[in-house]
Amino acid sequence: MAGNQVKTKNPSQKQKSGGGGGGKKKEVKKETGLGLTNKKAENFGEWYSEVVVNSEMIEYYDISGCYILRPWAMSIWESMQAFFDPEIKKLKIKNCYFPLFVSPGVLEKEKEHVEGFAPEVAWVTKSGKTDLDVPIAIRPTSETVMYPYFSKWIRGHRDLPLKLNQWCNVVRWEFSNPTPFIRSREFLWQEGHTAFATKEEADKEVLDILELYRRIYEEYLAIPVIKGKKSELEKFAGGLYTTSVEAFIPNTGRGIQGATSHCLGQNFSKMFDIEFEDENREKAKVWQNSWAYSTRTIGVMVMVHGDDKGLVLPPKVASIQVIVIPVPYKDADTQGILDACSATVNTLVEAGIRAESDLRDNYSPGWKYSHWEMKGVPLRIEIGPKDLANQQVRAVRRDNGAKIDIKSVDSVEEIKKLLGNIQQNLLEVAKQKRDECIQVIHTWDEFVQALGQKKMILAPWCDEEEVEVDVKARTKGETGAAKTLCSPFEQPELPEGTKCFASGKPAKKWSYWGRSY
Amino acid sequence: MAGNQVKTKNPSQKQKSGGGGGGKKKEVKKETGLGLTNKKAENFGEWYSEVVVNSEMIEYYDISGCYILRPWAMSIWESMQAFFDPEIKKLKIKNCYFPLFVSPGVLEKEKEHVEGFAPEVAWVTKSGKTDLDVPIAIRPTSETVMYPYFSKWIRGHRDLPLKLNQWCNVVRWEFSNPTPFIRSREFLWQEGHTAFATKEEADKEVLDILELYRRIYEEYLAIPVIKGKKSELEKFAGGLYTTSVEAFIPNTGRGIQGATSHCLGQNFSKMFDIEFEDENREKAKVWQNSWAYSTRTIGVMVMVHGDDKGLVLPPKVASIQVIVIPVPYKDADTQGILDACSATVNTLVEAGIRAESDLRDNYSPGWKYSHWEMKGVPLRIEIGPKDLANQQVRAVRRDNGAKIDIKSVDSVEEIKKLLGNIQQNLLEVAKQKRDECIQVIHTWDEFVQALGQKKMILAPWCDEEEVEVDVKARTKGETGAAKTLCSPFEQPELPEGTKCFASGKPAKKWSYWGRSY
Repeated sequence: MAGNQVKTKNPSQKQKSGGGGGGKKKEVKKETGLGLTNKKAENFGEWYSEVVVNSEMIEYYDISGCYILRPWAMSIWESMQAFFDPEIKKLKIKNCYFPLFVSPGVLEKEKEHVEGFAPEVAWVTKSGKTDLDVPIAIRPTSETVMYPYFSKWIRGHRDLPLKLNQWCNVVRWEFSNPTPFIRSREFLWQEGHTAFATKEEADKEVLDILELYRRIYEEYLAIPVIKGKKSELEKFAGGLYTTSVEAFIPNTGRGIQGATSHCLGQNFSKMFDIEFEDENREKAKVWQNSWAYSTRTIGVMVMVHGDDKGLVLPPKVASIQVIVIPVPYKDADTQGILDACSATVNTLVEAGIRAESDLRDNYSPGWKYSHWEMKGVPLRIEIGPKDLANQQVRAVRRDNGAKIDIKSVDSVEEIKKLLGNIQQNLLEVAKQKRDECIQVIHTWDEFVQALGQKKMILAPWCDEEEVEVDVKARTKGETGAAKTLCSPFEQPELPEGTKCFASGKPAKKWSYWGRSY
Repeated sequence: MAGNQVKTKNPSQKQKSGGGGGGKKKEVKKETGLGLTNKKAENFGEWYSEVVVNSEMIEYYDISGCYILRPWAMSIWESMQAFFDPEIKKLKIKNCYFPLFVSPGVLEKEKEHVEGFAPEVAWVTKSGKTDLDVPIAIRPTSETVMYPYFSKWIRGHRDLPLKLNQWCNVVRWEFSNPTPFIRSREFLWQEGHTAFATKEEADKEVLDILELYRRIYEEYLAIPVIKGKKSELEKFAGGLYTTSVEAFIPNTGRGIQGATSHCLGQNFSKMFDIEFEDENREKAKVWQNSWAYSTRTIGVMVMVHGDDKGLVLPPKVASIQVIVIPVPYKDADTQGILDACSATVNTLVEAGIRAESDLRDNYSPGWKYSHWEMKGVPLRIEIGPKDLANQQVRAVRRDNGAKIDIKSVDSVEEIKKLLGNIQQNLLEVAKQKRDECIQVIHTWDEFVQALGQKKMILAPWCDEEEVEVDVKARTKGETGAAKTLCSPFEQPELPEGTKCFASGKPAKKWSYWGRSY
């Protein structure tokens, strides 16, 4: 961890150090040290840390495992929120805010649940110089914070469904390998908590929400995900079943849980006594769900799309979709070029495209190219003397480097089309790379070999918990044990007589296996 | 505090207890216990607690000083956010997120500042069962969290201005008299933190932001506020000067600081070494501002507009602006009435009005009137057999009880007009009541008398810190000492020779004085 911090702080400082002084020439030279020192294919972990810092998404913080989300990251979070929040409001889910603090008695009420979180809970024991009478926990998630009040608010069937959501921070004081966005001690998320009269309604909502999570990944972040159900071993502590969208990072050969939608069944309603009188005036416990996605989404996006030039942003979540850069030459009409840049930005902004120009006179065009490539802006527009003369602009795609000359009069239409293409292409390329990593296996030998090749393994499985425990034990090594990622909803055919790859017992389903984050 | 909780939990439970069982008749009877047991004019504190609970804005939480913000409160917060966030984005302020936790060394760096907060800081000392090496503080505000990174990010004049904002929770573990919204141990706010090359720019922004705060209060919450400057004694700890919008609660005769916009000067930039190289390549410290408004706004709104029937919501922040209630009679065309209600809601919603109907068949119209009055919905539409026959609806205003018959064909136009009138009337009535409480005084005797009459006192003052200390000491009593609220930007004429009401020295300015929250 400490090593991580040192490594990633250096490039950032280098990038920043020349911001102030020096003549133009000198400064430009200083600033050309913009490139990444690590390559994605060679040294993925270092590359990741360098990208998130150098793109100005993240600043490392002086408390280990905590990170500063700079505006370049926060704007991505906000654009996902701008999609998700209205969508859940359409489902009649309402926002609320429950306290950050939990009293120990409530936290510990659901044993299985609390065991999943207990080692990571941060405790407040003092205010000022005064010891508190009772230590108070900081929420790692809000099931136990909320459900005593569900019990109070829900009396009759007319109080159902109760559908709440909150946007907040949660704290899990993990000690293993903190990574910006992916595993941090404090993170931002939304957590939905709902209660229904029937299991059918709860089941339906689990999938409605999971579909929204799929759309966040595929439509906004341009990342292919697999919808499925978690194994008993991997499901949410205290819940009935867990569904998730699973992404995959080809470079590390690791699956990553993208977001989860849990059916809690009646387990919490029994513990917290959340009861209602039904139409027949009989008492019944409610059926509950909880579901969440977090700032981890942003980390998955960096890992999937980033390259050796830095971040690559899908247009839909980029706070700047188009950066317009003047390319003046000595004898050229500099003012004309600058004016054309401003005019282009105005035209694009009026058409609803998030465009900005970089007219700074102390950086060379080349430096600016690198800078905005590092930050992942989807499309660069260059305007030089030739473009000016020809009443055109040159567009350069961040995703594939393609250069396209566009007539100025067509710029809005063409650039909208290009942004759409980039969004689509990112998803297609990511899907192709992910699909190349998927390997169907039938035997333990094939499993071990595929795992060594960093595959996302689709295998017939007997669905027995002790078998997964056994697979974990047998694959435990330096790079971590293999486990189930999910059992996909889209099941390939499972011919009669197919055996579990691990136990040799009759297979009950196909499951994805692999190492994971 | 504990007493407060007991008092306010009861009415809520009473309201809820009949939600499930019972025949229709019985149920209605049970539920008529909706009214408040306390009156605003007689027992303000109890009235306030009852209103925030019974209107379903607040639920008391099992940790003292923490409150649950239910959807009815959260939606008000969201509507203010929907105004403020785009406004600050127009000013090129960007959202970010800094960690909840602060290390002690950083927290204590600015002595004067930390002294203002130290007794209220909550400390995390354990994770799971493990003691932390060093206790970690929870942010009471983020100056010391952010400014070490300002120091890192700001190098040259081109890095300025740096303008950040975050929407987050903060914790101040106060022990005195917690009150929902007004004084709670955790609350939600936005905090803006900006850095400029010159004092002029900082000064300007302080006022730009203050104007947005005025607009939140006057245009959204319909609460008149006074813009002004805080005294040296009352300014932000560690800052250069503080401006605020000040509201007043006539019932308690207390001023309340609505929101603050601070110029921090160069104090923090000296402590945290936030330096830049200016155009002449000389080192200079930045000028900084910080500014915030919090969920306290909602509490002020409840206190100012609420009445003995419950909450009164200004239409601009009401998540339901119009509630449509069917009023069937025995022999009437019930289905026709219900259909007319639904049609009315559809028409209004299509026109952008936030309308809902309450078609529940287990509550009487009278119960529903009380219920939605308690929740403060600005306009009630009743549709009964006579209305149906006359192709009209009956509108009833929450603010003044006025009843208006509206032709169904004109409903959108008329209701839009009515909502505008209600918004305006709430502000006017509040302003009139506030103005009646303002008293201009010149002498100590007048001051004491006005204070006894719960006035907001405008007095000529010598502007000396020790005089304010002295006034506080001399007025200290059961109901709290008087202090300056602000020195208003709109200064009445101060004739030559006017003396300070407290010290007899030459007066330098007019200031508002009073007791406050």
